Amino acid sequence: MNLILFEPAETSVPLPRTDARAMHILKVLRRHVGDTFDCGLVNGPRGKATLAAVSPEALTLRFAWDATPPPAPAPITLLLGLPRPQTARDILRDATSLGVAALHFVTTEKGDPNYALSSLWSSGEWRRHLVIGAEQAFDTHLPAVTHGRPFEEIVATLPPASTRLVLDNYESPTALSAFHLMSEKAVVAFGPERGWSAAERDLFRASGFQFVHLGSRVLRAETATIAAVTLIRAKLGLL
Amino acid sequence: MNLILFEPAETSVPLPRTDARAMHILKVLRRHVGDTFDCGLVNGPRGKATLAAVSPEALTLRFAWDATPPPAPAPITLLLGLPRPQTARDILRDATSLGVAALHFVTTEKGDPNYALSSLWSSGEWRRHLVIGAEQAFDTHLPAVTHGRPFEEIVATLPPASTRLVLDNYESPTALSAFHLMSEKAVVAFGPERGWSAAERDLFRASGFQFVHLGSRVLRAETATIAAVTLIRAKLGLL
Repeated sequence: MNLILFEPAETSVPLPRTDARAMHILKVLRRHVGDTFDCGLVNGPRGKATLAAVSPEALTLRFAWDATPPPAPAPITLLLGLPRPQTARDILRDATSLGVAALHFVTTEKGDPNYALSSLWSSGEWRRHLVIGAEQAFDTHLPAVTHGRPFEEIVATLPPASTRLVLDNYESPTALSAFHLMSEKAVVAFGPERGWSAAERDLFRASGFQFVHLGSRVLRAETATIAAVTLIRAKLGLL
Repeated sequence: MNLILFEPAETSVPLPRTDARAMHILKVLRRHVGDTFDCGLVNGPRGKATLAAVSPEALTLRFAWDATPPPAPAPITLLLGLPRPQTARDILRDATSLGVAALHFVTTEKGDPNYALSSLWSSGEWRRHLVIGAEQAFDTHLPAVTHGRPFEEIVATLPPASTRLVLDNYESPTALSAFHLMSEKAVVAFGPERGWSAAERDLFRASGFQFVHLGSRVLRAETATIAAVTLIRAKLGLL
């Protein structure tokens, strides 16, 4: 991790020695009393933390925040047919590192219903992967995330005036790399393992989505997500 | 895996039941005698295999190869400061899936010398990750790979008349996304965890490399590799 993120409520109380961040500060960064390290406030500023005291139970930290927060996340929303949990973990982390505004993991007709029941979602573990991704990118912003809501419900809530794209290597005549973005916001949809149903394709078309592809090579969902977000960030002038 | 790869010498002998591919054909693809599946010959054509017989020890397969092999890999060479083995595994797989011609994992001044001694390299395990990546991409081509050779030695062997880029978020004024490729071949270099030494930077400059960046966000090496190869494939008109 390139900076260590804290929740607002955590900045006024000691950090327990059992917290993974306390271990990281002492054992990996090897900080002693009086030393500083890079920190951030979730969805807030970056800054410097000073290790003020170390007891057997906890670390006492003092925070000094930068006056201006890091740039807002890119106006990119991802809509993903719920993948298997290990794939979702990587996408949560990597999409946050690359910088997106929102991630919606939706249920679909041909998706495996067990994926929505994973402890990744029910235990709240999913949020940890956002934190890891933001810390990697030296950012404080976590994307908005929904999970397990039906595809149709999320499509109805998408930002208006956004370019809407759905990745599909079978139905799309247009390469994403050759697509001209006509707006400053983008929504990109990625199908579940078994693809979209005919009804879902119809709803995409009725909702202003255009079908694009990433070339003839079949990529893992994790790889395709990184590739598509990279191309869109470049098109938005953010890379 | 979207197709199953075989070495030439394997196509004339039975496939032992203990081979992972035999398990996959029987248990995941659930093929019975007379059924077919997609296959490929390493660095050769794709085709269809027919399960001709199943004994307690082995599968007998018959192969029918397509007349034309899949397109040649993209003329992209990656030069990477040796990463930790788990990172190298992901890069071997994902760079092959995306399609590159060569991968050179080089020793560098500031690199961790233990990484070159990993069993990933000494056991030959590295090649398995290329096969997984090619099978994912429905391709048969495996990139050429070297590992553990010194940076200077590999720089001297790079393809002539190629655009030579080195990713560096500190020294580079130019975004890779805005860089205009002047040739049909590209070499892209990625630093080790602790970066390039001053002497290595000098050798890059003396060898015609230009410094480019992937934006202000700090990415994992695995993510940066996928992002850079995607942008270059798009610039070469291959995406």
